[in-house]
Amino acid sequence: MTRLTSWVESANTADTDFPLNNLPYGVFSTNSLEARCGVAIGDMILDMAALEEEGIVTLAEEAVFDVPYWNDVMELGPDTWATLRTRLTEMLTTDSAEQAKIAPHLVPMSEAVLHMPMVVSEYTDFYAGRHHATNVGTMFRGAENALPPNWLHIPIGYNGRASTVVPSGTDIIRPNGQLKAPDADTPSFGPCKRLDIELEMGAIVGTSTDMGRPIGVAEADDMIFGYVLLNDWSARDIQAWEYQPLGPFQAKAFATSISPWIVTKAALEPFRTSTPEREFELLPYLQEPGPMLYDIDLSVLIEPEGGQQEVIARTNYNEMYYSAAQQLAHHASSGCAMNAGDLLGSGTISGKEKSERGSLLELSWGGKEPITLQDGTTRSFLNDGDTMILTGHAQGDGYRIGFGACAGKIVPAVDFP
Amino acid sequence: MTRLTSWVESANTADTDFPLNNLPYGVFSTNSLEARCGVAIGDMILDMAALEEEGIVTLAEEAVFDVPYWNDVMELGPDTWATLRTRLTEMLTTDSAEQAKIAPHLVPMSEAVLHMPMVVSEYTDFYAGRHHATNVGTMFRGAENALPPNWLHIPIGYNGRASTVVPSGTDIIRPNGQLKAPDADTPSFGPCKRLDIELEMGAIVGTSTDMGRPIGVAEADDMIFGYVLLNDWSARDIQAWEYQPLGPFQAKAFATSISPWIVTKAALEPFRTSTPEREFELLPYLQEPGPMLYDIDLSVLIEPEGGQQEVIARTNYNEMYYSAAQQLAHHASSGCAMNAGDLLGSGTISGKEKSERGSLLELSWGGKEPITLQDGTTRSFLNDGDTMILTGHAQGDGYRIGFGACAGKIVPAVDFP
Repeated sequence: MTRLTSWVESANTADTDFPLNNLPYGVFSTNSLEARCGVAIGDMILDMAALEEEGIVTLAEEAVFDVPYWNDVMELGPDTWATLRTRLTEMLTTDSAEQAKIAPHLVPMSEAVLHMPMVVSEYTDFYAGRHHATNVGTMFRGAENALPPNWLHIPIGYNGRASTVVPSGTDIIRPNGQLKAPDADTPSFGPCKRLDIELEMGAIVGTSTDMGRPIGVAEADDMIFGYVLLNDWSARDIQAWEYQPLGPFQAKAFATSISPWIVTKAALEPFRTSTPEREFELLPYLQEPGPMLYDIDLSVLIEPEGGQQEVIARTNYNEMYYSAAQQLAHHASSGCAMNAGDLLGSGTISGKEKSERGSLLELSWGGKEPITLQDGTTRSFLNDGDTMILTGHAQGDGYRIGFGACAGKIVPAVDFP
Repeated sequence: MTRLTSWVESANTADTDFPLNNLPYGVFSTNSLEARCGVAIGDMILDMAALEEEGIVTLAEEAVFDVPYWNDVMELGPDTWATLRTRLTEMLTTDSAEQAKIAPHLVPMSEAVLHMPMVVSEYTDFYAGRHHATNVGTMFRGAENALPPNWLHIPIGYNGRASTVVPSGTDIIRPNGQLKAPDADTPSFGPCKRLDIELEMGAIVGTSTDMGRPIGVAEADDMIFGYVLLNDWSARDIQAWEYQPLGPFQAKAFATSISPWIVTKAALEPFRTSTPEREFELLPYLQEPGPMLYDIDLSVLIEPEGGQQEVIARTNYNEMYYSAAQQLAHHASSGCAMNAGDLLGSGTISGKEKSERGSLLELSWGGKEPITLQDGTTRSFLNDGDTMILTGHAQGDGYRIGFGACAGKIVPAVDFP
């Protein structure tokens, strides 16, 4: 795949997240435009509601772009997704005859506010990064028992909370919760002291299945609409006390941030890569017909209050043991109905090296080895005022498919009523 | 509270689930009426959409009853809920001057199909029955470690799957899943062999909170719109293999049944009762300002294919250690946003005695002590063709506040694609 060029000049640089090859989907508003669907191209946003109103782009009898979510487009199905992408490429390519009528509907990204790109139907979070699971297991259960016995057979996951999935830029209020120090007899209630991030990718399910109808991995892959970066904010101290025997609950329920642009599966096609060698052969319902992961470079940055941004970890989505398609096939295997707008978190992505760990829990080894920032301060977990930023892109030849940042600033806990 | 009498004669018997004191909310359709909001009274359903269209009942500027869910009414808030109840009581009471204009809008329940009474925003399931938690813990970890250390301090819960919450009468397809026998080296994939029920109450949240805004127990109680019976169908063999370390997932995701009528909190007021004595004082955010449970008799019945219904367990909602209001306060304690239409499962309700256990896992003690039915067959877990029925009511003086049945029949597993 080579770089496609656009008459939108800012889309033709090597370092833009949004070249013509990308065309990710978001929701934006401006001082004069209500929240609506838009497509990122260079440093501009294409106003899809306006194009639809003028009859330049028509996907269905009813309008689908004049709403603050892409769910209606998802529901139209993969053939329509392909039609839309072809049409967008045609309109925005260098030689397009339509430049004059399209150009007035480009809005500078700098003048826009970005919102959630979709209504999250339900949110499920997985635990499918082997290095992460091994690191956490080693800390909690010792190196011999690091991976639970089911881990190499099942994409382990749990249902998360959809009501607190928020777009990049939303402040994250430090959660309150029950905490119990190892030497305390009883728990206390108060602000989390071990607030953490988890670097993940989010897969967005674009079509629905009926209850009772399982799917294979190939069909699951066809159902995926696109991907975002995802930060599964985690209160480690709340989690440690609450999670037995039914898993994480309030430790994760307070916030999950996603990057604002849905990068389509189509844009990521050139970057497909295989999941790793298997220690045990997977059961047939989880076997992949082809490469189902993507080669996506990922970074975690921190920006202390009033300070500079710096990278604290780099890794790649190709580190996952299970793909989103496998996770989705597993999710539906019991007959669980899946819906357009369902969001599947990959699980924390960590590489083999210390510098590749996707959470502070791992980077500081449970707080025993705090990391030192450029300003000389240290972090085991997050301080109020810290802004955490995830970035990611797939690197093509002279272009990249970027996600835009997934950022959130920690603000102090609220007083309890 | 004494029995109120209605000009709808069938509402005045001692054994109807739906006297004038009850007035629960559901969604129904008939051959000639599309799905819409209705109120149960005796063996009739009051067509609320018709009353609204004729201007007999008006709650808001826009119509709220001509839709197949009660969420719009919920969103109007507790004052409007009280107004509606007062208005319904007035219209249906024996001396009502409005009988002639109301009567044409009564539909025989026998001619109606009942649907989900609301759109489930998100579904959360708790684990707040002490006898159940003790029984399960004893089976899995021994009597000394039966209750996890956090159990007496936290209403333990996990996020469930909203997409598969179905109304009474929906067939339950036996789920497929990963199973691993204790003596097997690796798991296999196939139909669940240990399919079970869990007898629960479901609390329906009627108003919303913003992200980051915790609430107290009194406010949480004010937010509850009403209650249903809930069967948290459970695949014990799938659960045993998948649940470490992040809790139940596919073992519960295939189906959850609820009774079709939302019994309002107002109807249950005369039956309030306190949670039990506390072994440890609860943290202030969980302390109750008054009685928050209800005295509701509950039964589990089984009907084998072609056979007779029989009761296999009886217990009471007053066995819970935590109330729905406490669960809701805990749910929001981290800042988790709660929404109208959220459904909170109480957790399995078991009494102290063997005959009071709310799951087959407990009744058959993990399959070691199968129960014998009237037809001479035995059950450790469910057979294909078994219909499981939950019933419940609060007993007043000469009347009862009933829920209607929560039933589901087990049908065979599907072949995997």
